[in-house]
Amino acid sequence: MKKDYTVVGKNIRKLDAIEKAMGAATFTTDIKLPGMLYGKVLRSPYPHARIVKIDTSKAEALPGVKAVATYLNTPRVKFNTSATSTFTIPPLQPVEDQYVFDSVVRYVGDEVAAVAATSKKVAEEALELIEVEYELLPTVFDPLAAMKEEAPSLHHCEAGKNVPGEKIHIEMGDIELGFAEADYVFEHTFKLPVQKQAQMETQAAVAQVSVDGKVTVWSTTQTPHPSRRILATIFGLPYSKVRVLNPPYIGGGFGVRIGLSAKAEPIALALAMLAKQPVKVVYDRKEDFIASDTRHSGYVTVKTGVKKDGTFTARKIMGILNSGAYCSWSAETPGVLGAMGLSIYYCPNQMYDGHSVYTNTTPAGAMRGFGNPQGMFAVDSQVDIIAEELGMDPMEIRRKNIMRPGLPWVLPYPCQSSGLEECMDLGAKAIVWDQRGKQNQDSDTIRRGIGMAIGTHVSNAWPFCGDYSNAYVTVQQDGSIQVASGVPDMGTGTITTLSQMAAEVMGIAFGQVGITFADTESTPFEIGSHASRTCYASGTAVVAAAQDARKQVFEYAANMLEVTPGELDIENGIIYSTLTQEKNISLGQVAMEAHLRGQQFIGVGRIIPQNAPPYLAHFAEVEVDTETGKVRVTKMVAAHDVGKAIHPLIVEGQLEGGLAMGIGYALSEEIKYDDRGRQLNNGFHKYMLPTAMDIPELEAIIVEAEDPTGPFGAKGVGETGLVATAAAIANAVYDAIGIRFFEIPLTEERVYRALKERK
Amino acid sequence: MKKDYTVVGKNIRKLDAIEKAMGAATFTTDIKLPGMLYGKVLRSPYPHARIVKIDTSKAEALPGVKAVATYLNTPRVKFNTSATSTFTIPPLQPVEDQYVFDSVVRYVGDEVAAVAATSKKVAEEALELIEVEYELLPTVFDPLAAMKEEAPSLHHCEAGKNVPGEKIHIEMGDIELGFAEADYVFEHTFKLPVQKQAQMETQAAVAQVSVDGKVTVWSTTQTPHPSRRILATIFGLPYSKVRVLNPPYIGGGFGVRIGLSAKAEPIALALAMLAKQPVKVVYDRKEDFIASDTRHSGYVTVKTGVKKDGTFTARKIMGILNSGAYCSWSAETPGVLGAMGLSIYYCPNQMYDGHSVYTNTTPAGAMRGFGNPQGMFAVDSQVDIIAEELGMDPMEIRRKNIMRPGLPWVLPYPCQSSGLEECMDLGAKAIVWDQRGKQNQDSDTIRRGIGMAIGTHVSNAWPFCGDYSNAYVTVQQDGSIQVASGVPDMGTGTITTLSQMAAEVMGIAFGQVGITFADTESTPFEIGSHASRTCYASGTAVVAAAQDARKQVFEYAANMLEVTPGELDIENGIIYSTLTQEKNISLGQVAMEAHLRGQQFIGVGRIIPQNAPPYLAHFAEVEVDTETGKVRVTKMVAAHDVGKAIHPLIVEGQLEGGLAMGIGYALSEEIKYDDRGRQLNNGFHKYMLPTAMDIPELEAIIVEAEDPTGPFGAKGVGETGLVATAAAIANAVYDAIGIRFFEIPLTEERVYRALKERK
Repeated sequence: MKKDYTVVGKNIRKLDAIEKAMGAATFTTDIKLPGMLYGKVLRSPYPHARIVKIDTSKAEALPGVKAVATYLNTPRVKFNTSATSTFTIPPLQPVEDQYVFDSVVRYVGDEVAAVAATSKKVAEEALELIEVEYELLPTVFDPLAAMKEEAPSLHHCEAGKNVPGEKIHIEMGDIELGFAEADYVFEHTFKLPVQKQAQMETQAAVAQVSVDGKVTVWSTTQTPHPSRRILATIFGLPYSKVRVLNPPYIGGGFGVRIGLSAKAEPIALALAMLAKQPVKVVYDRKEDFIASDTRHSGYVTVKTGVKKDGTFTARKIMGILNSGAYCSWSAETPGVLGAMGLSIYYCPNQMYDGHSVYTNTTPAGAMRGFGNPQGMFAVDSQVDIIAEELGMDPMEIRRKNIMRPGLPWVLPYPCQSSGLEECMDLGAKAIVWDQRGKQNQDSDTIRRGIGMAIGTHVSNAWPFCGDYSNAYVTVQQDGSIQVASGVPDMGTGTITTLSQMAAEVMGIAFGQVGITFADTESTPFEIGSHASRTCYASGTAVVAAAQDARKQVFEYAANMLEVTPGELDIENGIIYSTLTQEKNISLGQVAMEAHLRGQQFIGVGRIIPQNAPPYLAHFAEVEVDTETGKVRVTKMVAAHDVGKAIHPLIVEGQLEGGLAMGIGYALSEEIKYDDRGRQLNNGFHKYMLPTAMDIPELEAIIVEAEDPTGPFGAKGVGETGLVATAAAIANAVYDAIGIRFFEIPLTEERVYRALKERK
Repeated sequence: MKKDYTVVGKNIRKLDAIEKAMGAATFTTDIKLPGMLYGKVLRSPYPHARIVKIDTSKAEALPGVKAVATYLNTPRVKFNTSATSTFTIPPLQPVEDQYVFDSVVRYVGDEVAAVAATSKKVAEEALELIEVEYELLPTVFDPLAAMKEEAPSLHHCEAGKNVPGEKIHIEMGDIELGFAEADYVFEHTFKLPVQKQAQMETQAAVAQVSVDGKVTVWSTTQTPHPSRRILATIFGLPYSKVRVLNPPYIGGGFGVRIGLSAKAEPIALALAMLAKQPVKVVYDRKEDFIASDTRHSGYVTVKTGVKKDGTFTARKIMGILNSGAYCSWSAETPGVLGAMGLSIYYCPNQMYDGHSVYTNTTPAGAMRGFGNPQGMFAVDSQVDIIAEELGMDPMEIRRKNIMRPGLPWVLPYPCQSSGLEECMDLGAKAIVWDQRGKQNQDSDTIRRGIGMAIGTHVSNAWPFCGDYSNAYVTVQQDGSIQVASGVPDMGTGTITTLSQMAAEVMGIAFGQVGITFADTESTPFEIGSHASRTCYASGTAVVAAAQDARKQVFEYAANMLEVTPGELDIENGIIYSTLTQEKNISLGQVAMEAHLRGQQFIGVGRIIPQNAPPYLAHFAEVEVDTETGKVRVTKMVAAHDVGKAIHPLIVEGQLEGGLAMGIGYALSEEIKYDDRGRQLNNGFHKYMLPTAMDIPELEAIIVEAEDPTGPFGAKGVGETGLVATAAAIANAVYDAIGIRFFEIPLTEERVYRALKERK
């Protein structure tokens, strides 16, 4: 049932737009406090070593140095920089394998010590005066090698050699029977690269400790409440004595700071405690590359049983991901890879086995898509292989097998909505799918192709970890409202979207909404911004709070108007009886009347979200230069079932951003290591992000298959933009040059070599 | 029923103690923002004048000047600097008689213009460049004169010539019959001086307007939420776009900033809007004297009918107070004077008539006691006169007539508790009342005397204006809690007291409580700190919120322990069954378990307070130097029924502070005006505050007649300390030298003249 909304669905100016356009928005790096010091970190030059001796005396003696922190004078409490320790669902236990500083370093960039000084320059000078004697330890960089008996153990592991947490096993139906029923069985292994979030703002935190021990930390975290929990635990403080907040803006996130901002917060806080002065720690770009989570690289094997007519009878996926030196989100990511990879198609017999493996590389953690882009590159590359083998059109084989509402799947929540087929149809029309195979190939060297891929994702973190949200909506005496939610806005439009929903429920203008956010002291517990959840889950909490407030308002107004609450509605701030036109009163009048009688309408929303599947179909048109191996995407169409676009422009922005990131994943982005565990391309000059020149015409198509569990029917949209992009491009490249790639990115070098090999 | 509390009743270290002792606490004057300007105000040199012409061009041209504000470029919206506009109870209407700047000035110090500049010095220079042409208007300085037909009208008034708001009339029984039944009728008129709050920190505000129009104001206000309402109304903004907060500390208040901090907030905000830069306005001490509310001076007439045995049969009080040039709290103050003056004694036939009158002097507003010290000076001076006439001991006549629980009075709430008689008994014992009249008078010139007086007060603002409170108590995942209340802490220990109550209800240690306060953005609506209400009313809201959270905790824990919620109790953070010793679990475990299942315990307290009478008996021992007229208080005993002392040291501090302020009121403090309406003593060098040298041994005695309506039985204690002090001292002076004073302060000059006159 489509309803005519007055605020929801409208492209209202984003709440942060003017501040950001005018350069007035405050980010963590902008924070200056009286007496604030600058912290810098000494990082390990070795991929695996024991610190035999560390002498900080010369550094401490340098004028301007106020504190030097090492494993010797900081808490010996293990933690996980990710928020997993905050909401791993029992009986699973969070993997806590890090200290602020440890006597063993496990990757190049691992924290050895940190200095707080009166200037960045002095701090950097002091780092060079710290004398460290290392005993080198054996190393391993590849996850397959790290699983072997002879590999060095990076941490104590229960589930297997170098396996953090528990192995994931998912099963539905009878996999053996499924393969037995198949006419053909296909099995392929795909290799995935290390991608970097490359968010605009590097990891940063400012920590202040009051003279009586109360802690305030401003940071780039995507999750203030979970961050508070981690910090309070490390430093042994009651949670209520630690305040974590955004300042309030964050220059992007893409998953890189779900939990702590790498170690910016605990290092800043440890230094602030030692120096008894506020300390700012801002990672430089190199640090952000080498010592801050990346996307998981690894291997994904897909084995599919299929009937002659293209019906899938069995699918087995195996994923082995490279955790890097610490766990971060490595226990959860393989789960999302498997569950999403299995859930895009209906298949009665399914199985997934997957896990991560520690290696002596930069830790991998959460990144937009969270395992799903890895899995979908594999799955939807293979589906095209199968289609070709069976002589089917890629659209046709997908249409035959896609998941549809009501069908069983491996997820613990039902599929209640799907606009996937509509996405496929609209996307095919926009890319002119019918021209596939009939493209103009009039150049000697340029080959053109079209490809597609589909995908789904989540709208919040459950069931992969806990997810819930709380919010307040208080009605002010003039009828304006104040929303309070602990969720940050990383630039994704969260506060605008939440304010729109609150305004819609309350029946007031958007401009009447104020919002308090991203501060543990002024908001109830909220998981934070990740898992495509802010609109869906935080939004549901805000809607619940607004509904609670609205209920109180209607009860009060009904009394004033001498009608029943049930007959009341509100529009443009006017509460009116739907039965009698004369009976109406403004929200401001009701709020003021209640105020003068001693009452404020305070709505509290407490929700545990369901989950809902967004769907997407991506279409890529590419040109491959057969002389150079250069792949150019000339057009991309992304048709997304977002449930309901609360703010269509924000949704389009999310999709376009995801597409760009997906193009980078497909074509150019990869962190490589040398044989001593050192990143070869730890900066924007070597790490090949797609630039504006690389981005083709992008067409985002919004499909709205409203989900009954979402606020106004909305589903998650933050990550979907890149889920199927790499597969769609790889399939288009195949269409262009007939070469199937089992590894991305499709760099000039890789494509060139493949072309050469074929010749 | 006395209960053994673990946190309540204990002298825990105040939450703000260390920060203040270390100089680390932040006050409004400490705030520095990037690009912040300094605002200074041009004030009228005339007591009543029309601005014929104002030329700001030269000021604007001065380098460094960023804005000049006058009535010509600031909002033409009338308001009241007090919070009365926020919670006057209908059908009464708040008196709104001020603009930020007006074209008429009505007292010496009234605001003419203001400048924002890059430094205070430049701003001050610019003030001198503003050219103003005034047309002088007729003036009136005495309230009795201002009521006369021929007096100039300062404002349009409905209730009578120069009468702001409505006249107060209170009545019980049959006053004529009461006087007819009396054996004697006494009538006396008393004259009260202008006292100044003389709080440590002068009025101050910093206003910031974001590029998209959102307003943040840090200020010294005692009432952030009501202040926000006033500012939003003046500047035509939705309340949700205005944030008002303390920074978070305030250097005292004593009523001087219930509502706005004089005009610091609107002037700073007007300048910030004009300059498009943040602006700080800090009143200097002289401005704080001449342009910030004082206590009401005026006249109080008491007429009492009494039987031969000392029983009161009728009492009529009349109060005429000097409002000064604007209303501020002048509509409410006469009501408190009357209601309290009538309620300390039981008398079946009572009447009060009172009101304020506009004059061309500095506005009078709220000051600790709020009319009550004025009335009680009159009432309890007269009671001593009556006692002497009837040959009764002052203790005896009071004991015969004091209000007792269950008896009728003029207040709309019942008297449900009284420790007054115990206060009288303990106080009399401490001062050695039996020695009265038998004191050592061995000096030629020094005469010694003992006097007493009693009093009562309120525990919140109702019924004189609206009063309600809301609070949140959220349980963190470790079992620590976060309290959120919009109430400020002016140094009175509010946050400590509220945290104690929350800890007690939740059964946890004091150190486990965090508190968010005094910020409109992070707390639900709360009236603020005044009317002796923070412990009683804000406390009741916090207790209600904690009880709500505790109920949720017990329900959850009962499920975990497989017991009923009703059998659970909590101590030291351990929830246990009162029936089965084995069944127990820590609050932290329950909170974490709930967290992992998607629930936070969020308690919301929403209360409309009752009211409860604190009681007090003050005893003063004085020496009067008959050669110089110098009165020295040698000892004061203050026995107070505070219901329940949540934090005895804080209570004693409040009592001692009140006593010191009362000693000043009795002996030395008075703002005087010359015949051109100029204050003669607008600074600490001329306004005679009692210093440490003037303060005698003070003995505070705490009596705890718990009131059923108060949190843990507590009643208000913020103002009681000075209610009866002046009367007790005047009565002691009479005992020493036999001269009855009908006017305070009892300065050397006044006493000397009276001694000389008698000779």
